[in-house]
Amino acid sequence: MLLQEQSTKTKMSDTKTAIMIIGGAEDRTQKSEILHTFFYRSGSTDASIAIIPSASQQPALNGGQYVKLFETMGAKQIELLDLRRRKECMKPNVLAYLEACTGVFLTGGDQLRLTDILANTPAIEIIRSRVQQGQLTLAGTSAGAAIMGHHMISGGCSGEPPNRSMVELTTGLGILPRLIVDQHFHNRNRMARLVSALCAHPDKLGIGIDEDTCAMVESDGLLQVVGKGTVTIINPCEMSYTNCSCVEPDKPLSVHNLRVHILSHGDRYHLHQGTVFAPTAYALI
Amino acid sequence: MLLQEQSTKTKMSDTKTAIMIIGGAEDRTQKSEILHTFFYRSGSTDASIAIIPSASQQPALNGGQYVKLFETMGAKQIELLDLRRRKECMKPNVLAYLEACTGVFLTGGDQLRLTDILANTPAIEIIRSRVQQGQLTLAGTSAGAAIMGHHMISGGCSGEPPNRSMVELTTGLGILPRLIVDQHFHNRNRMARLVSALCAHPDKLGIGIDEDTCAMVESDGLLQVVGKGTVTIINPCEMSYTNCSCVEPDKPLSVHNLRVHILSHGDRYHLHQGTVFAPTAYALI
Repeated sequence: MLLQEQSTKTKMSDTKTAIMIIGGAEDRTQKSEILHTFFYRSGSTDASIAIIPSASQQPALNGGQYVKLFETMGAKQIELLDLRRRKECMKPNVLAYLEACTGVFLTGGDQLRLTDILANTPAIEIIRSRVQQGQLTLAGTSAGAAIMGHHMISGGCSGEPPNRSMVELTTGLGILPRLIVDQHFHNRNRMARLVSALCAHPDKLGIGIDEDTCAMVESDGLLQVVGKGTVTIINPCEMSYTNCSCVEPDKPLSVHNLRVHILSHGDRYHLHQGTVFAPTAYALI
Repeated sequence: MLLQEQSTKTKMSDTKTAIMIIGGAEDRTQKSEILHTFFYRSGSTDASIAIIPSASQQPALNGGQYVKLFETMGAKQIELLDLRRRKECMKPNVLAYLEACTGVFLTGGDQLRLTDILANTPAIEIIRSRVQQGQLTLAGTSAGAAIMGHHMISGGCSGEPPNRSMVELTTGLGILPRLIVDQHFHNRNRMARLVSALCAHPDKLGIGIDEDTCAMVESDGLLQVVGKGTVTIINPCEMSYTNCSCVEPDKPLSVHNLRVHILSHGDRYHLHQGTVFAPTAYALI
């Protein structure tokens, strides 16, 4: 096992790891650009991948689909870590695999189930630490994307003016703590709920990701869009006023001076610098 | 008639006129703040009001509801101008009433029907001219709001990433030419279609108005929000990039650097200066 770990880590030094936040409903055929990118960023045929389907109500079935897909792509090793209870997140064999693997994929389902099982466990601590050190590519789709921030949107609705009661916020897994992620974004008309979430946390950055679309974050903080839809960045850093703290929960919110970017495939945004780049250059219209 | 006109105009000199852009589904009971504001801004008990229900498929019924409401409020004179054909927009008695009245109300329905009947007719020229001179308060709800800009959203959909094919644009009645208005805004999840419209016209200003909400524009360009929901301002004046001109109609749009304000009751925005004000003062959070 030790030899295998060393061998894997040596190979991974050639591969640029990333955090891949996927908006759900990604293409799962052999053509999938997003899943191929995850496979490549995990080490391609040298990849050792962990599938964690804990968000799903049918974890074996849902996780099994990804296992087959990455097997077909040619990953060296794939383990379905079917963690259903918190104590399973402390098992030595699970932790050993997470210490050695090169890619972790969090499936969709219910983000509350995922955080209930994983939060503050050795398993997520290993993942977070190895992601931060660039040793591991982490991808999460739908519920697996929602957990990326410190604050997590766990529910809500659409079809209303922005208001505090239209979004349920709880604590995520804090992989990228500054982000508040929303997924299936334009597909489920979630702009108002993400704005509502940001009103209460204007020190955060809102990231709304459409279906079959990925916000891929490099270790230096550069986010790049991959896929069929858009990634919406809502930056409240210039926000000059909100009535959030004094308005009743079901009453409309005021928010002045949000900066919004809609990014499509190839567009980039630097999370630390707050700058946005077009696919080829920073072009003027 | 001449005496009556002079009398009306003298009384209106005490009343501050406005353009009232209403997001549809406004409260039509006696409690209605928006319709009371229109009544007041038209001269209260000295008001001579024209109801134009041309957008509606049931113009007599729909217009009749507003006639009854303003009668109950105590307007001096109310005429239902049931204009169903363009030639009716040239009739001397219609034009004489529009030259003399102090308030014009455009009902909801289909904005294309409204522009087909009214565009480039003497009737709309009189309304536009008298509104610009501060002689008349003009209100439009739903379809009656959509026609306010030079560019008009005549159809579209939601639940998609912003793209050119999700919004149908045609020519409005140009009362406030710089605006692109969308109504039933958050209620029908129309953020993506308004953004899509603005990509093609970044010299315009997007105004999304929720139901039972009014963007009331004073003669000096100060917009104030009245009502239950929000008015969303999307200002593309700092837009640094869009792929709008080179992307296929159904492919996602990129738009970098939009400035967005969500305004609720009492908030103000200066259309010419691009500045936003909280209800009591320009407060910091």
